Amino acid sequence: MASNSFGEILRITSFGESHGAAMGGVIDGFPPGVIIDPDFVQQCLDRRRPGQSKLVSQRREADKIEILSGVYDNKTTGSPIAFIVRNSDQRSADYEALSYVYRPSHADFTYHQKYGHADLRGGGRASARETLVRVAAGAFAMHLLKLFGIKVLAYTHQIGNIAAQENLSELTQAIVDVSPTRCPDPAAAAQMEEMLAELARHGDSVGGIVACAITGVPAGLGEPVYNKLSATLAAAMMGINAAKGFGVGEGFAAAARKGSEHNDAFVVENGRITTRTNHSGGIQGGISNGQPVTFQVAFKPPASIARQQTTVDKSGKEVQLSVTGRHDPCVVPRAVPVVEAMAALVIADFYLRNLIYTPFRKTVEI
Amino acid sequence: MASNSFGEILRITSFGESHGAAMGGVIDGFPPGVIIDPDFVQQCLDRRRPGQSKLVSQRREADKIEILSGVYDNKTTGSPIAFIVRNSDQRSADYEALSYVYRPSHADFTYHQKYGHADLRGGGRASARETLVRVAAGAFAMHLLKLFGIKVLAYTHQIGNIAAQENLSELTQAIVDVSPTRCPDPAAAAQMEEMLAELARHGDSVGGIVACAITGVPAGLGEPVYNKLSATLAAAMMGINAAKGFGVGEGFAAAARKGSEHNDAFVVENGRITTRTNHSGGIQGGISNGQPVTFQVAFKPPASIARQQTTVDKSGKEVQLSVTGRHDPCVVPRAVPVVEAMAALVIADFYLRNLIYTPFRKTVEI
Amino acid sequence: MASNSFGEILRITSFGESHGAAMGGVIDGFPPGVIIDPDFVQQCLDRRRPGQSKLVSQRREADKIEILSGVYDNKTTGSPIAFIVRNSDQRSADYEALSYVYRPSHADFTYHQKYGHADLRGGGRASARETLVRVAAGAFAMHLLKLFGIKVLAYTHQIGNIAAQENLSELTQAIVDVSPTRCPDPAAAAQMEEMLAELARHGDSVGGIVACAITGVPAGLGEPVYNKLSATLAAAMMGINAAKGFGVGEGFAAAARKGSEHNDAFVVENGRITTRTNHSGGIQGGISNGQPVTFQVAFKPPASIARQQTTVDKSGKEVQLSVTGRHDPCVVPRAVPVVEAMAALVIADFYLRNLIYTPFRKTVEI
Amino acid sequence: MASNSFGEILRITSFGESHGAAMGGVIDGFPPGVIIDPDFVQQCLDRRRPGQSKLVSQRREADKIEILSGVYDNKTTGSPIAFIVRNSDQRSADYEALSYVYRPSHADFTYHQKYGHADLRGGGRASARETLVRVAAGAFAMHLLKLFGIKVLAYTHQIGNIAAQENLSELTQAIVDVSPTRCPDPAAAAQMEEMLAELARHGDSVGGIVACAITGVPAGLGEPVYNKLSATLAAAMMGINAAKGFGVGEGFAAAARKGSEHNDAFVVENGRITTRTNHSGGIQGGISNGQPVTFQVAFKPPASIARQQTTVDKSGKEVQLSVTGRHDPCVVPRAVPVVEAMAALVIADFYLRNLIYTPFRKTVEI
Repeated sequence: MASNSFGEILRITSFGESHGAAMGGVIDGFPPGVIIDPDFVQQCLDRRRPGQSKLVSQRREADKIEILSGVYDNKTTGSPIAFIVRNSDQRSADYEALSYVYRPSHADFTYHQKYGHADLRGGGRASARETLVRVAAGAFAMHLLKLFGIKVLAYTHQIGNIAAQENLSELTQAIVDVSPTRCPDPAAAAQMEEMLAELARHGDSVGGIVACAITGVPAGLGEPVYNKLSATLAAAMMGINAAKGFGVGEGFAAAARKGSEHNDAFVVENGRITTRTNHSGGIQGGISNGQPVTFQVAFKPPASIARQQTTVDKSGKEVQLSVTGRHDPCVVPRAVPVVEAMAALVIADFYLRNLIYTPFRKTVEI
Repeated sequence: MASNSFGEILRITSFGESHGAAMGGVIDGFPPGVIIDPDFVQQCLDRRRPGQSKLVSQRREADKIEILSGVYDNKTTGSPIAFIVRNSDQRSADYEALSYVYRPSHADFTYHQKYGHADLRGGGRASARETLVRVAAGAFAMHLLKLFGIKVLAYTHQIGNIAAQENLSELTQAIVDVSPTRCPDPAAAAQMEEMLAELARHGDSVGGIVACAITGVPAGLGEPVYNKLSATLAAAMMGINAAKGFGVGEGFAAAARKGSEHNDAFVVENGRITTRTNHSGGIQGGISNGQPVTFQVAFKPPASIARQQTTVDKSGKEVQLSVTGRHDPCVVPRAVPVVEAMAALVIADFYLRNLIYTPFRKTVEI
Repeated sequence: MASNSFGEILRITSFGESHGAAMGGVIDGFPPGVIIDPDFVQQCLDRRRPGQSKLVSQRREADKIEILSGVYDNKTTGSPIAFIVRNSDQRSADYEALSYVYRPSHADFTYHQKYGHADLRGGGRASARETLVRVAAGAFAMHLLKLFGIKVLAYTHQIGNIAAQENLSELTQAIVDVSPTRCPDPAAAAQMEEMLAELARHGDSVGGIVACAITGVPAGLGEPVYNKLSATLAAAMMGINAAKGFGVGEGFAAAARKGSEHNDAFVVENGRITTRTNHSGGIQGGISNGQPVTFQVAFKPPASIARQQTTVDKSGKEVQLSVTGRHDPCVVPRAVPVVEAMAALVIADFYLRNLIYTPFRKTVEI
Repeated sequence: MASNSFGEILRITSFGESHGAAMGGVIDGFPPGVIIDPDFVQQCLDRRRPGQSKLVSQRREADKIEILSGVYDNKTTGSPIAFIVRNSDQRSADYEALSYVYRPSHADFTYHQKYGHADLRGGGRASARETLVRVAAGAFAMHLLKLFGIKVLAYTHQIGNIAAQENLSELTQAIVDVSPTRCPDPAAAAQMEEMLAELARHGDSVGGIVACAITGVPAGLGEPVYNKLSATLAAAMMGINAAKGFGVGEGFAAAARKGSEHNDAFVVENGRITTRTNHSGGIQGGISNGQPVTFQVAFKPPASIARQQTTVDKSGKEVQLSVTGRHDPCVVPRAVPVVEAMAALVIADFYLRNLIYTPFRKTVEI
């Protein structure tokens, strides 16, 4: 059934296969009258693009966005914003040899089982190339967040077993982008680069963790029960290719905590009620409390590795496989802008939802 | 906006406040002609009920379910299944003292900010009592899973820093339920019981991790891109009260793995293509591969603790608070059936979705 | 699949069979802090109830509503509003004889084909008794409309071939309710009453038309393209039992008009831009223009008639049938409050949707 | 909020302004493995195109479709099918003079009120050019209907006060397309052509009625209560530009009927249970009964007329207006393929929904 949309009030619908004519999306529900900077949208795409550093896939795609509708004279009209990115570098030949082989931990087998067919050119919809649609849509959403005073910043927290020491309050995108690893801790970043170079030599890959902080989120975003802000963020992040885990605030570390340690006491600061600590990651009862919303996303190692692997083809015959396409040794550096984009889409959607309550909140005496 | 529903084809809509007249739900989209065992539904509710052991809240609720529609002569009719559970033990007095105090890490403050009011009797919709709706709905979904040959089994994997050693292939619900901790590892369970008793003496609480395995899931469930099986499971689990983290397969541990370690090679076993290992947790590219679907959910320590805490009331005045209601020192034992219920709802929904493709898959030559 | 909900931001989910334990609904997305008058809700139900006049079914149901959640101290909390109405007068015996007979123009056959079963006690979900859920939900929505200064008024425009002459600007609900026909034209109402008495003597039934005007609707409600205000009103009305036609403004009469006759010229009145005429029924391009929204709904004659009819049972054997239950000779008088309720739900939903655009509309220079 | 999508299982999302870069759509939920004939899709678009006869707008658009995704080797992949049609003939100059004038019965005013801006180039999203998206999407849906043995046929039933006499059982698309009016009754068609020529001379326009019959629909499509097949068809049709009325089966004529006349008795024919008559239009209780689904859609006269009209501009100043663009004197001939397309989308969606119940229907004993 229809399942390529994300969001309620602000909704992105995605289309395109990595080796087809184009990738693209339709953003429906974007409010009218918002000034759009097309260069900013392109810059966001450039941050995700392959070929930008030695650490990522050398596939060369210009990834130039064309906006087809919904923006007139650089201002949104309230109509759906459609955009496409043509696929220019479609080396289907790389994939032909694979056509009948189930690559380990790839989606070839599951797609085959689900759809009864296999358009294996680059993985079809399973290709991480689809994430450019998210990044473009997120770039539009960021225009809204800017109006609302909200900022999203993600970065590489861990690659393999190397974890960064970061100081959240001083982070900027410029600092994050200093290293091609997108790790803001220079010492850790250096180790990560070395590890990735070593892995490349051995035809192997590795996992990692992206952390993200959203600042300026007003209290009240998120819906109780099933559509908690944390639940929707989780769905958004776990929908990203290769994501295997999600945690909000302290995440899995909270499992080992006592209530007396983990509880965030309310205090008054600068005349506003806030919390002394932020173990909750800015969300309580599924609703934002005004503190930074913080979360982490764990990614598995890329399944495509040059090292030889034993697997089977669709007839069940055992085959030896070495995946020779141009693939990233670790998805995390390029996942950083994808995480930011999905976070922006979630927050913008919940912010717009919350506008419905504004007149009711105001007229009520407590 | 409307946000108290979960699921697409099979959808549960929940209602009720913990200290109102009743909790209840409407299950829409349940197929016709399925024989329902009302005793099984009640037993599922009994597993979640407070007061069932010394480790959980002593609030006494019979939690008797009344089915109002959708079932006739113990068979589903295809119409919405509505059910209610009356609230019998509403000690609002416990909450009156709290009415104007923002309990640390509770939803009082965020609800106040969102709705401009506070029905603080038991936390309203933020109360974990709402999870009985999920358990009842999940019990109906389990009738479908049984028809499909699918089983869901969750258990306590960790409480505080005590983690179980479990043998997944031998687990049964009976084994899980031997200890009131719902930890199937007797040694760990004993330690956990001791820890919880100790915490109770000190008026404190602790977090933990529930693990879950779903067996018998056919390959092909889940939708690519935004509605991956893993993403929807994440949303389902992170929507449970106190959940702070979610991982599928190896979860966060996958971040430290190499591709050559983590990849699940395809092999032929008993004439069927399957994978040699299951690091992926039964999901590749967001779609089930026929292996058991495995995941973990991290829960924070309950926010309600008897120990004195400093916080503020709604005027911003600092107050000392000791939460004296009847609360669980750890949510994990009672979260086990809630995790199972939400898992059942997700799998049943995706299974029904997939039936749409059945005729198309069959007629296609590959 | 799940299909018993209506609305986007404000959503009603309905449940219950006419001869089951209870009918009920869940209203999700209702804003917080709105004062509710339970007596008004009950009065709306009483206007729909059978047995209220000699012209309608003599089935006796107290139809007392019980509100289970979402309202505290007569004020909405922002949580789902659930309500039930117990079924007290379930004369299933009336239906037993029918159990295997397909009543002409009833839903027995189509339900049987769809669900592979037949809970024929009163038609199950196909019974017009389900409309009490709509009336109750609409009564809640009317509380919102009152805050927004919007009024909904429906009335009987035609029964059989007797059409009323009405003066829209002078209508009130009191005038509509003078005659049990709910036709505000006394001369036509008298003729209608006579016709209905005559039909009752002959064991026959007749169709009719309900007209409706919604005043106070601000310009800007409705979504372009697929979710036009007119399209959603059409779906709402055609979802009512026995509805066969819908027209907005001049409806089908517009088909015979010239553009020069039908166009509504813009003029300035009292300093506001409005239209000189209202052939459009207050909607242009699918969006309200500030004029009264007017529409008509055509209903077929009730299928249940005492006159003998020839039909078949489920084995295909020809049978003679005389439907002896307590049925209305014309649905139109009791459909009037149902039309109002569905209209209220649609307008309230679109009004809430439009609040999202408020801040964007304001900041834009034209 | 997001509102440019239509359908549940099979969903079309539309984008594009008539004077922007392109119109297009994304069809999500289309089953895999279906052979697509791109020429057929183009032919459907050609039937809707302006400039095809002297009776319609002379705007010249090649309206060539480009399929961007979801189809590989002329077979659907199960991924979203995206397509675009570039806008080639954008005479914005025609509209510049109008920019600040509210054209009578156009959407200029309501868009202005809703969005706080006006992209008046051709009406933006309110332009009937958007219907090409529906026609293209419907053409894809017709590939599914063909597999299911379902046919959709619409035709001009009435223009102005000239109504056709048609013999439904003998109609074909070829017969419908003989006259540029798309009226299959030659005598009526001749009168209509004369009337339209006369209106063109006087710079006026006229309304009309499109009738449609869908044959081969199996019993069981449609959902009870709010999502009746008739209700969803009504929403689909009332969402078409200029639609003002909808009727299923006898439509508004049913209002004047008695039950004894209107009821459709069940009979056995060729060993199958069917109805002797089809006053219901193939739908009972909102669910198809296996008979042809028949309905009518009333369209108002086009608002754009060359005759001088008095109206106001956005400052409220009275202005004289003569709309000099290239406009149709009657929308009905070109609405015929649009009605067919929307009907195809509705039926395909409901057919796919119903596949979910197949296994449950079969295993149930009645």
